Amino acid sequence: MAIMTTTSSLTFQPVLERIAEEMARTPGRGRPADYIPALAARDARSFGMAVAELDGTVYGVGDWHEPFSTQSITKVFTLALDLAREGDELWEHVGREPSGNPFNSLVQLEYENGIPRNPFINAGALVVTDRLQTRSGDAAGELRDFLRAESGNAVLDFDLEVAASESAHGDRNAALAHFMASYGNIDNPVPTLLDQYFRQCSITASCADLALATGFLARHGVRADGTRLLSRSQAKQVNAVMLTCGTYDAAGEFAYRVGLPGKSGVGGGIIAVVPGRCTLCVWSPGLDERGNSVTGVAALERFTTLTGLSVF
Amino acid sequence: MAIMTTTSSLTFQPVLERIAEEMARTPGRGRPADYIPALAARDARSFGMAVAELDGTVYGVGDWHEPFSTQSITKVFTLALDLAREGDELWEHVGREPSGNPFNSLVQLEYENGIPRNPFINAGALVVTDRLQTRSGDAAGELRDFLRAESGNAVLDFDLEVAASESAHGDRNAALAHFMASYGNIDNPVPTLLDQYFRQCSITASCADLALATGFLARHGVRADGTRLLSRSQAKQVNAVMLTCGTYDAAGEFAYRVGLPGKSGVGGGIIAVVPGRCTLCVWSPGLDERGNSVTGVAALERFTTLTGLSVF
Amino acid sequence: MAIMTTTSSLTFQPVLERIAEEMARTPGRGRPADYIPALAARDARSFGMAVAELDGTVYGVGDWHEPFSTQSITKVFTLALDLAREGDELWEHVGREPSGNPFNSLVQLEYENGIPRNPFINAGALVVTDRLQTRSGDAAGELRDFLRAESGNAVLDFDLEVAASESAHGDRNAALAHFMASYGNIDNPVPTLLDQYFRQCSITASCADLALATGFLARHGVRADGTRLLSRSQAKQVNAVMLTCGTYDAAGEFAYRVGLPGKSGVGGGIIAVVPGRCTLCVWSPGLDERGNSVTGVAALERFTTLTGLSVF
Amino acid sequence: MAIMTTTSSLTFQPVLERIAEEMARTPGRGRPADYIPALAARDARSFGMAVAELDGTVYGVGDWHEPFSTQSITKVFTLALDLAREGDELWEHVGREPSGNPFNSLVQLEYENGIPRNPFINAGALVVTDRLQTRSGDAAGELRDFLRAESGNAVLDFDLEVAASESAHGDRNAALAHFMASYGNIDNPVPTLLDQYFRQCSITASCADLALATGFLARHGVRADGTRLLSRSQAKQVNAVMLTCGTYDAAGEFAYRVGLPGKSGVGGGIIAVVPGRCTLCVWSPGLDERGNSVTGVAALERFTTLTGLSVF
Repeated sequence: MAIMTTTSSLTFQPVLERIAEEMARTPGRGRPADYIPALAARDARSFGMAVAELDGTVYGVGDWHEPFSTQSITKVFTLALDLAREGDELWEHVGREPSGNPFNSLVQLEYENGIPRNPFINAGALVVTDRLQTRSGDAAGELRDFLRAESGNAVLDFDLEVAASESAHGDRNAALAHFMASYGNIDNPVPTLLDQYFRQCSITASCADLALATGFLARHGVRADGTRLLSRSQAKQVNAVMLTCGTYDAAGEFAYRVGLPGKSGVGGGIIAVVPGRCTLCVWSPGLDERGNSVTGVAALERFTTLTGLSVF
Repeated sequence: MAIMTTTSSLTFQPVLERIAEEMARTPGRGRPADYIPALAARDARSFGMAVAELDGTVYGVGDWHEPFSTQSITKVFTLALDLAREGDELWEHVGREPSGNPFNSLVQLEYENGIPRNPFINAGALVVTDRLQTRSGDAAGELRDFLRAESGNAVLDFDLEVAASESAHGDRNAALAHFMASYGNIDNPVPTLLDQYFRQCSITASCADLALATGFLARHGVRADGTRLLSRSQAKQVNAVMLTCGTYDAAGEFAYRVGLPGKSGVGGGIIAVVPGRCTLCVWSPGLDERGNSVTGVAALERFTTLTGLSVF
Repeated sequence: MAIMTTTSSLTFQPVLERIAEEMARTPGRGRPADYIPALAARDARSFGMAVAELDGTVYGVGDWHEPFSTQSITKVFTLALDLAREGDELWEHVGREPSGNPFNSLVQLEYENGIPRNPFINAGALVVTDRLQTRSGDAAGELRDFLRAESGNAVLDFDLEVAASESAHGDRNAALAHFMASYGNIDNPVPTLLDQYFRQCSITASCADLALATGFLARHGVRADGTRLLSRSQAKQVNAVMLTCGTYDAAGEFAYRVGLPGKSGVGGGIIAVVPGRCTLCVWSPGLDERGNSVTGVAALERFTTLTGLSVF
Repeated sequence: MAIMTTTSSLTFQPVLERIAEEMARTPGRGRPADYIPALAARDARSFGMAVAELDGTVYGVGDWHEPFSTQSITKVFTLALDLAREGDELWEHVGREPSGNPFNSLVQLEYENGIPRNPFINAGALVVTDRLQTRSGDAAGELRDFLRAESGNAVLDFDLEVAASESAHGDRNAALAHFMASYGNIDNPVPTLLDQYFRQCSITASCADLALATGFLARHGVRADGTRLLSRSQAKQVNAVMLTCGTYDAAGEFAYRVGLPGKSGVGGGIIAVVPGRCTLCVWSPGLDERGNSVTGVAALERFTTLTGLSVF
């Protein structure tokens, strides 16, 4: 822990600038997601990174104020919002084990009777959104309001064109939802659920916005305004689920290389948490074959190597 | 991190005693493994727990000096010893992703062409032992010597009766080894490999021994005598693999509840690491249906809750 | 083939009566399907059996004129009708291998990129109905007209109450249809397809009706009115698919015990074909755990044993 | 059945010659198995075909007297020999359902607790050989004696070089045997079993030999000397298992195209049965990707098309 004492008087700016320089030397790695036009159109050379300290101080580099499509990153916030509302009962409807299987979505659902492995695979995220929808009446709206409040960005919003594109390619998610409904694990009508889910995934935000919005997980559950969203124990639990399940079937690799709880999205963003210390968001649209930002993972790996701020 | 400053002047003894009292109120949970006589004969009410600080100071409670069968716990040390010898080349022969599947051993091997998911499932541990055997000529012997040196216990040894029992029930491990050999992923003759593997699993040690022997993972790779076994980066990597894969298909649950890198064995022991701070070993023979000590997991959960010493 | 010469002058009536007597001594085996009310309400002691010769002579026993819910039996006719319209192109969209897996519906679809294993698992039947719908504009209507013409029963019809019940329990079929649509293997809108599919399954007919309607498969493709529906080769192919895939994951058992091409439905009916000789339909609502009529299979086994009219 | 009356006065010679001419126009299709030298050395242009009538009259064409490696074809005879000895008890140790899965060998074994799907996948054949070994004391010897007696070829024998090659590539079969032993489904020591199994697979025989040796399955269980090996019902059952499981994961395709019970081997041979009428053996070493002789399947398809002698 010696290194943490050292870093306590540190500003993160020089580290970020060094990382940005290194990344600029190996630009354009990976390929942007291409299943919907809004994602395919992004420049693979884009790169932004932000670090937010517990008190809301933010450091950034590159395109860190550029809004991008958050996609699966929002699953972390929906999980936290639903946990805050219903507590441990959620875990009777979704597991918290890594899926370990690129074919997980449907194969494991069938072997495990409609209970998804964890809240970060699509099936699990649909269950969480379904449950938040039942409790709030407007899951996507509650999510947007939370992100606005935590980031201080009052114009952060859905991208309805993206939501429509997702819906037009939504057969697999519809299959997942109907399949879980066949096991009694979905409460809302499938079309309602999918509408909420696609809007949730469509939210556009910047690295700065997301680094700040993730802050409650580094503050052991406490929101930006000092109120508590999650208990200390719940915050620890969300971080644990992020570490073991946050990057699809590459969670082991991410833990190995980066060593932080993190959650990626196919828009090219990744959020990460250094509990008790800071939160990060990196964005670069080029993805590897498992759907994680190539440059994003590399930048986070450099960050923990340079600062020693890994949980391990 | 405030809590860590607080605990820096703390002795762990009162915490351990409180945990022991709590555990004593709910004794005998779970059932000892019964596939070999030596394990079945252990009293499910046994309980020991030890914490070792970075400098080798050890605190303990209950049966913390009682030797027990280490079983899969030894996979951590074999992994470290082989990594120290061959470095990253190992990862071309074994993955580092959670298996996420109780049927993992053979099903995933087949889907993934003989490359085991991670070094802590049996198939992966066989690969690691095979590679260490090729490099050292006596994998089990090198392991025993390492454990003796780190624990300071010069009589720590194999239990050859246990090794013989394992061998008599060894058809599944033989199947795994032959199956990987059919993909060219095993170098040594299968009987040689199995002999090394069963001896490795048969090592008997106490909580005190294992808490001390695990110390190098909290000291970022540095052994008890100050020499370096692993680089800082490698030590971080081993901790990451323990966290995501160390407790069979319950790794998500263990991360969620305990929040530490850990490795369990069917003898009822679990080791755990608080990087930069201390190492733990708990032992209680009663297992849950996934092969982890019921009381052991509960005790570690209480430890991180009481001290705040979780990585999350 | 000596036995066939012998049976050529035989009426089937005494054989059917003997089988009925034997079955009456072991009544009520198995349990009716209970997922929709119309099926659950049937008396497990019901038993009917009919044999139709190539010229349309029908023999019967027990409840052989009692209408029952045909369910999956109709998949044979839809397959024949679509094959007649599009020929071998169909086989690019559905396979003809046994599924060999109780979990086949979704697991195999995922491993095989949305191409169902065969036309008799639900996923495959959805594809066939989808293709017939595209070609005929009213798949269920075309099926009903065909069955009326072949059976001579002008009032054979859908049971719209059953279709509505199926629809209310239709999440799993919706999941299958959306999942295949995500691979581009469904042409019609999913709601249209499901409506056609549920109506198709709801057709009510008697053993006499179905034994007659199956006649074209014993006549090598020729319909009751002497016109040709399928080529000789196509008729052989449909019989082959029935034998290898007609009774869910019990096709091997059915071939072993009965030795005839056959197709079962959860309504308790089974049709079977003795190529070049006759067709059979048996009905008894009690099912085994794999969804086949317990008494129906037993009666067919007795039939082939008593007459020697197995294909083996 | 009109065609069967017609063919009763037919000699098969002209049909075989026509097929041989057709096959000669598309020579060399597929590739010989190359995992052992003896198989890889065979000329893909070789082609032989024989038909044996019930009374032992044999017709042949091409290389029909050329000995080749029988490989998996012998599984049919071992199954019959064991069934004759122990009857239905065998079916408690091996199933009779198609495997439907190229990954069947290990995956399905694990899901189904060590009971192989059917006697014709490697795992199932190992169980059958193990049981015959227990009952006869020399499974491979009993098999050889049976084939000699039925074919009238007194020098038909093992190819010990082939057996040694198989043994040298035997890790996967060793894995299967140990895995089933771990479930208690293997009686003999694994090395003994493998020795018997590899010798069994190594038997060399010609199309003429095998067409004659298969005769008992067309004669409803009666051997060449008029004694009975199997009951009529057992012979029907073996034919049924051949039809549903005889050509690996292409059984549906084989039934669809050929329409006869058949069993293939990676040596390029295929045997087939027209119950009550005749038996066939075809040989051509070029295999498709599922391990079946390309020209062999094509030749059998032509045979049933030209003669109408399919079971459907």
